[in-house]
Amino acid sequence: MSRFRDSKFSLLKEYVPGEQPQDKKYIKLNTNESPFPPSPLVISSVNAEEVAKLNLYSDPECKILKKTVAERYGVETENVFLSNGSDEILNFAFMLYGNVNGTVFPDISYGFYKVFGDLYNIKYDAIPLTESFEINPEDYKNTNKFVVIANPNAPTGIALTLDVIEDIIRSNPDNVVLIDEAYVDFGAESALSLIDKYNNLIVCRTYSKSRSLAGARLGFAFASKELIADLELIRNSTNPYNINRLTQIAGTACIREDEYYMNACKEIEKVREYTRAELLKLGFEVLESKANFLFAKHNEIDGNELYLKLKGRGVLVRHFTSERICQFNRITIGTKDQMDIFLETVKSIMEEEK
Amino acid sequence: MSRFRDSKFSLLKEYVPGEQPQDKKYIKLNTNESPFPPSPLVISSVNAEEVAKLNLYSDPECKILKKTVAERYGVETENVFLSNGSDEILNFAFMLYGNVNGTVFPDISYGFYKVFGDLYNIKYDAIPLTESFEINPEDYKNTNKFVVIANPNAPTGIALTLDVIEDIIRSNPDNVVLIDEAYVDFGAESALSLIDKYNNLIVCRTYSKSRSLAGARLGFAFASKELIADLELIRNSTNPYNINRLTQIAGTACIREDEYYMNACKEIEKVREYTRAELLKLGFEVLESKANFLFAKHNEIDGNELYLKLKGRGVLVRHFTSERICQFNRITIGTKDQMDIFLETVKSIMEEEK
Repeated sequence: MSRFRDSKFSLLKEYVPGEQPQDKKYIKLNTNESPFPPSPLVISSVNAEEVAKLNLYSDPECKILKKTVAERYGVETENVFLSNGSDEILNFAFMLYGNVNGTVFPDISYGFYKVFGDLYNIKYDAIPLTESFEINPEDYKNTNKFVVIANPNAPTGIALTLDVIEDIIRSNPDNVVLIDEAYVDFGAESALSLIDKYNNLIVCRTYSKSRSLAGARLGFAFASKELIADLELIRNSTNPYNINRLTQIAGTACIREDEYYMNACKEIEKVREYTRAELLKLGFEVLESKANFLFAKHNEIDGNELYLKLKGRGVLVRHFTSERICQFNRITIGTKDQMDIFLETVKSIMEEEK
Repeated sequence: MSRFRDSKFSLLKEYVPGEQPQDKKYIKLNTNESPFPPSPLVISSVNAEEVAKLNLYSDPECKILKKTVAERYGVETENVFLSNGSDEILNFAFMLYGNVNGTVFPDISYGFYKVFGDLYNIKYDAIPLTESFEINPEDYKNTNKFVVIANPNAPTGIALTLDVIEDIIRSNPDNVVLIDEAYVDFGAESALSLIDKYNNLIVCRTYSKSRSLAGARLGFAFASKELIADLELIRNSTNPYNINRLTQIAGTACIREDEYYMNACKEIEKVREYTRAELLKLGFEVLESKANFLFAKHNEIDGNELYLKLKGRGVLVRHFTSERICQFNRITIGTKDQMDIFLETVKSIMEEEK
C-alpha cells in the first residue's frame, strides 16, 4: 500500500473471492455458479451485430432490461434497481444506511458484509448463529439498526420462512432491512411480495446463481421507490454506466426464457437432495440447505484436509478458515454427473482415512 | 429519496451523463464515442462459444487482459489497474486520497470530479480556468492536496505539455496527482513515461473513446505498484468481479489490434482539424482541441438555442448550462460524412438567424 492513502483504510482487509483457477480444469463446485449454460436466446442475442455496437455507450437507465425484470416479477420499474453484480447493491446499501445507527448481520454469512462494514467504518454487530448454525430471528427484531440477512443464508444454506422474515421487517420500522436473496430460487420463500407493504425493505437478487450469468455481472433489487431512488443516487454519483451493453441484452433475453432457468433450479434442487442423502450415508453432517450448495463436515477428516485432497484430485469446493466453520466445506451443486464424480472422490478419500 | 438514508448524502447531486436517447436515430456527437466499430478481432472473439460460458464467473484478477495491457504499454502487470469504466478509477482515487488534505481540480473539467468530491464530503477547490479557458499550471503546484487534472481537459479539449505536467507532479511529492488521460490518444502527450520516476502519479485511461468500447465499460490506470495496491484494496472491498467475461475478452482483442485503433485516432484528428477550420470559416470561436471533440460558440446564436435546433434536426451535441460555458457546445468528432451533415445543419441554422 502507499503512504498516500487515507489512514481510515489502514486496517481494511479486502474480500477474498473463491478461487478462479485459470491453470487447469477442475470440477468447479466452489463459487456457487450454475452448471448449466445460459439459455439459447441469451446465446443468440449476444451476437456479432450487437458486439459491433460496443463503440456506443450502454443505456445508463437500462430501460428495456428494467421493464423486462419489472414485468416478470409483477412490480413497477420504479421498484427495480439494476447493478454490476449484487455486490454493488450491498455496497451502496451499506454506504447509505450502514452508518446511521449501525448495522447487524449474522457472524457466519456472506463474508462481504464485514468488509463493507470495515470499508465505511460502520459500527456493526456480527451476531452469532445458534448452536445448530441457524439465525435466531429474535436477534434481529427491534434493532433500530440497518439489518442485513441472507436468506437462505450462506454458507449454511439454511432458510428462514417468510413469516419470520416479515416479523423482522415489521419490528424495524425506522431502519432498512435488506434481505439478500442470492440463492432464493432454489427452494426458499422470497420477501418480494412485501415491498409494497413495508417501505423499509430491500430485496436483493442476482443473475449469478439461478440465472447462469455469473460472468455477465448483473444484480437486481426490489424495494419501495424511495429506497430505489437512494440506490440510484449513489449509482449515478459513482458509475452511471455500470451495466455494459451486452449484459443488458443477456439479462433481458434471460428473463424472456424464464422457464429454462426455473427448470434448471428444480433440477439443481433434485441433485442437491440426492447429494445430501449420499453424503449422509457416508457419515457426513450436512445442514439442511435451500440453496444451490451444501455445507458439510465429517468427524473423521479435517475440513481443510478434505478440501485439499479434493483439490488434488481435480474437485474444487470452498473451505473457510474461521474457527467455527473450519471443519465444514461448502459444496456447490453441479450436474448429477459432476456430483457423482464428487461423491466417488469423497468416498475414495474417506476410505484412505480408515 | 427515503427518510432512512444517511444525512451526509442529503445535499448530494448526482452526475448527469449525456443523453442516450433510445427513441430515435440521431447523428450522435454528444458523448465522445468513437464513430468506428470495434476491430474485427473484437467482433470475432466475443462469440457464441464465449457467451455460452457466462454461467462461470470472470477472472477477478483479469490476468490475461492485464498482461496484454502491460505488454502494449511497456510496464509491469503490477503497474496496471483495470476497472468497470474509468469512472470507477476516479471513484476509488477520490475515496483513497481525496480527504487526506483536500483536493484540487479545474472548475471547468469533467463534471464528475465535483460529484465525487461531494459524495465523500471532500474539501475541494475547483480552480477557475484562465480567461482563455486554459489550466494555469501554477495553480496546481505545491498544493499538498490530491490533484486531479484531465489532459486534454474536457470539455475544452486543450492539452498541457508533458513538461508542464511533470512540473506539477514533481512539486507535489507528498500527495497523489491523477492525470485523467481519457482523450490522450487524439494528439496530446501522455504522462505514462513518468510512473517509474514519480510514485505519486496515477495515469487514468479508458477504452471508451479511442478504443471503440464505450459500451463494454473498461478503464485502466498506470501507477507505481503501491498506488495500484491501494486501488486494488478498494476494488476488492467493493466489487472484485467488476469486469465481466466478455469485456475482458473484448479488451484483450482490442489491444491485439492496436494499429486499427491508432489509425482511427489519426483519422479522427484529421476530421477534427477539418471541422474546426470549417467552423472558424462560419465565424465560430473554437478552442484548440487535442481531443476527439471541439468546444465552440458563435456570437450570433445562443449556445442552448443552437443545441436545441441541432437536436430538432437530428444532430445531438452536448450543451452545458453552467454560466461560463453556456454559450459553447461540445461537438464530438464523428466520421467525415457525419461532420459534413453537422456542418451543413449548422450552416442552415446560422442562415436562418440572419
